[in-house]
Amino acid sequence: MRTQRIEGLTDGIFAIAMTLLVIDLRLPELGQAFTDGTFWQAVSGLASHFLSFALSFVILGILWIGHHNQMHYIRKADRGFLWLNIVFFMFISLVPFSASVLAAASGLRLASVLYALNLMAAGIVLNAIWQYALRHDLVEEKLDPGLVRMVTIRILMAPAFYVAAILSAVLLPEPLGVHLSHLLFILPLLIYFFPASFDRWLR
Amino acid sequence: MRTQRIEGLTDGIFAIAMTLLVIDLRLPELGQAFTDGTFWQAVSGLASHFLSFALSFVILGILWIGHHNQMHYIRKADRGFLWLNIVFFMFISLVPFSASVLAAASGLRLASVLYALNLMAAGIVLNAIWQYALRHDLVEEKLDPGLVRMVTIRILMAPAFYVAAILSAVLLPEPLGVHLSHLLFILPLLIYFFPASFDRWLR
Amino acid sequence: MRTQRIEGLTDGIFAIAMTLLVIDLRLPELGQAFTDGTFWQAVSGLASHFLSFALSFVILGILWIGHHNQMHYIRKADRGFLWLNIVFFMFISLVPFSASVLAAASGLRLASVLYALNLMAAGIVLNAIWQYALRHDLVEEKLDPGLVRMVTIRILMAPAFYVAAILSAVLLPEPLGVHLSHLLFILPLLIYFFPASFDRWLR
Amino acid sequence: MRTQRIEGLTDGIFAIAMTLLVIDLRLPELGQAFTDGTFWQAVSGLASHFLSFALSFVILGILWIGHHNQMHYIRKADRGFLWLNIVFFMFISLVPFSASVLAAASGLRLASVLYALNLMAAGIVLNAIWQYALRHDLVEEKLDPGLVRMVTIRILMAPAFYVAAILSAVLLPEPLGVHLSHLLFILPLLIYFFPASFDRWLR
Repeated sequence: MRTQRIEGLTDGIFAIAMTLLVIDLRLPELGQAFTDGTFWQAVSGLASHFLSFALSFVILGILWIGHHNQMHYIRKADRGFLWLNIVFFMFISLVPFSASVLAAASGLRLASVLYALNLMAAGIVLNAIWQYALRHDLVEEKLDPGLVRMVTIRILMAPAFYVAAILSAVLLPEPLGVHLSHLLFILPLLIYFFPASFDRWLR
Repeated sequence: MRTQRIEGLTDGIFAIAMTLLVIDLRLPELGQAFTDGTFWQAVSGLASHFLSFALSFVILGILWIGHHNQMHYIRKADRGFLWLNIVFFMFISLVPFSASVLAAASGLRLASVLYALNLMAAGIVLNAIWQYALRHDLVEEKLDPGLVRMVTIRILMAPAFYVAAILSAVLLPEPLGVHLSHLLFILPLLIYFFPASFDRWLR
Repeated sequence: MRTQRIEGLTDGIFAIAMTLLVIDLRLPELGQAFTDGTFWQAVSGLASHFLSFALSFVILGILWIGHHNQMHYIRKADRGFLWLNIVFFMFISLVPFSASVLAAASGLRLASVLYALNLMAAGIVLNAIWQYALRHDLVEEKLDPGLVRMVTIRILMAPAFYVAAILSAVLLPEPLGVHLSHLLFILPLLIYFFPASFDRWLR
Repeated sequence: MRTQRIEGLTDGIFAIAMTLLVIDLRLPELGQAFTDGTFWQAVSGLASHFLSFALSFVILGILWIGHHNQMHYIRKADRGFLWLNIVFFMFISLVPFSASVLAAASGLRLASVLYALNLMAAGIVLNAIWQYALRHDLVEEKLDPGLVRMVTIRILMAPAFYVAAILSAVLLPEPLGVHLSHLLFILPLLIYFFPASFDRWLR
């Protein structure tokens, strides 16, 4: 089975999940015309939704790049591989919901936990896809073991941060734990922005 | 007529139908900030919506794989083939509605019937596409008759479960019939998860 | 400029417009659990929305097939061609709105007029794309003049029905004019279903 | 890294952002059947939303064509290139929100500023992608310097208009400044419609 159409479905799922994030950004309906004052209030009231939008968009971007990079080495697909991808897509499609929850209840530790669980699940399934492909010989021949290890570390790094975010939100006193969990959502982005420095540090 | 663009439209329709399922997952607007208590209540109030989301996502995944597998053997398209596909897409696009109905009225037999009718229609049209392609010589040459029969059985198996779900919801006393119908939505997934065992049992 | 990516955007626009039609199908929120009675009432209250969904889905399917068939003969694209396509996509994206209007106010002649105007505009721009491609040598060489004429007639046939629907809704007394306009939305579908008979009749 | 899948994601993001614009077009729910009078009132009450829909659709079309044209010369992708594209997609996905804001508060200077900022950001990132590709040798060999300059000017022209729109909305007295800013949103479209005349004028 070729992987071409899985890539088509992947791109579609990501494009939609990323774009659906914007649905959470909505001005309240006032029932009367906006004034400068009520408009500014309405827009600034969306601040946490804007942050959640930008954060989730970039995280989905990272996950897309991660999936993209894996598929670069994968030559074939079988039924189990398709299934793992569909479970992966399910967690990707859930992100607009989790992002909306994080924005609506940004002060609550439960919101951080739910958001982290969603992203952690996506990362773990992404790793499962990679391991499955390696074990069932779906990858191209003679893949460099160093590369395999590097890809695995890159994929699993983000879920590690999300585990830390959950622990922080659950164990630390409020509001410190919640703020720290938000920081732990943002931190891995820096590593993905500067992969070369990260690779050097790893060695 | 080539089949390549039908595949593009197919992937788009499935990606959107799958991702639109998430729109049904929405926290209620409280008009005030969430507390741990009201937040937990709001999230747990979405339980049946989560189940319907996951169930429908996986069922759409199965239907996508089914369509994908058919297209693997199909080399050409004609106008009738395009039309059958468009009708198939229509039932696929309806799934987010039926899933929302199943979640909103999960205790009612009518909701089970409506959900089952939607999926049954999709399965029957998927079979019609396959039969049409076979009869109008749109498939590749020298297709193994055993394979043709296997694909047909695989496609028609799920609608058989949905017929059983309808009968169960309509004929059995509540709430037993409704619960059994939900079980009959989940059961075929197991078969698709373990196709090899199913194939062996079939022989 | 190659036409491949225009096809990708086309498939995306159509897939989303078709799938977004389902957003108009929503059970009302009761504030309490559905009973068999209130559920049946809610679902049957969506009858005109179901009809508008199915009608619009199939019409979008026809327009997609029409665009698909044109692109089959088109080898190149230029800036003007891209622009006409974007205007075409705009009217395609408007269809979920017009379909929602037709369902919400199915008894009003103005709703029929608005729906017909939307579809008429899409058909006219589709023809403009075809004429533009012919005049600017974007089509493949040595296109049979009979085929060119046949494609043109096929494209312009549907808008002719929509003009008739507008005249019927505006000039005839209510509710006859409105009912006739609905019939005129459905009639062209039959011709597209049985193209061979139509072609024979044309000769 | 090949650019093919970036194109797939691009087409998906644009197709969805363009089609999601229609979600802002919604008849109000009256709670009773529409009459000719209330229907006409409801539709004409959407006038500013229609204008914002059409304007934003065409602007997204221009940005898509601009991205499309760039990719025509780009042969490779690297991580930085992917990242810039994801940031570009983020601003594209924001357009349905900004368009909705512009329609809901079309008389306010703040709405014009927000809309202009969104489009300006998209244009600037589009230019950043182009410059990045040039500097990191991702483009095809021996690209004509005149062409490079022409593409750059074309990309940066639209943001220049948006800067003017912001200045106009902020500095000029109301309602003149706001009206002028709307005009400045429309003006660049004319240039993109008649690129040949613009190119001649530039020389």
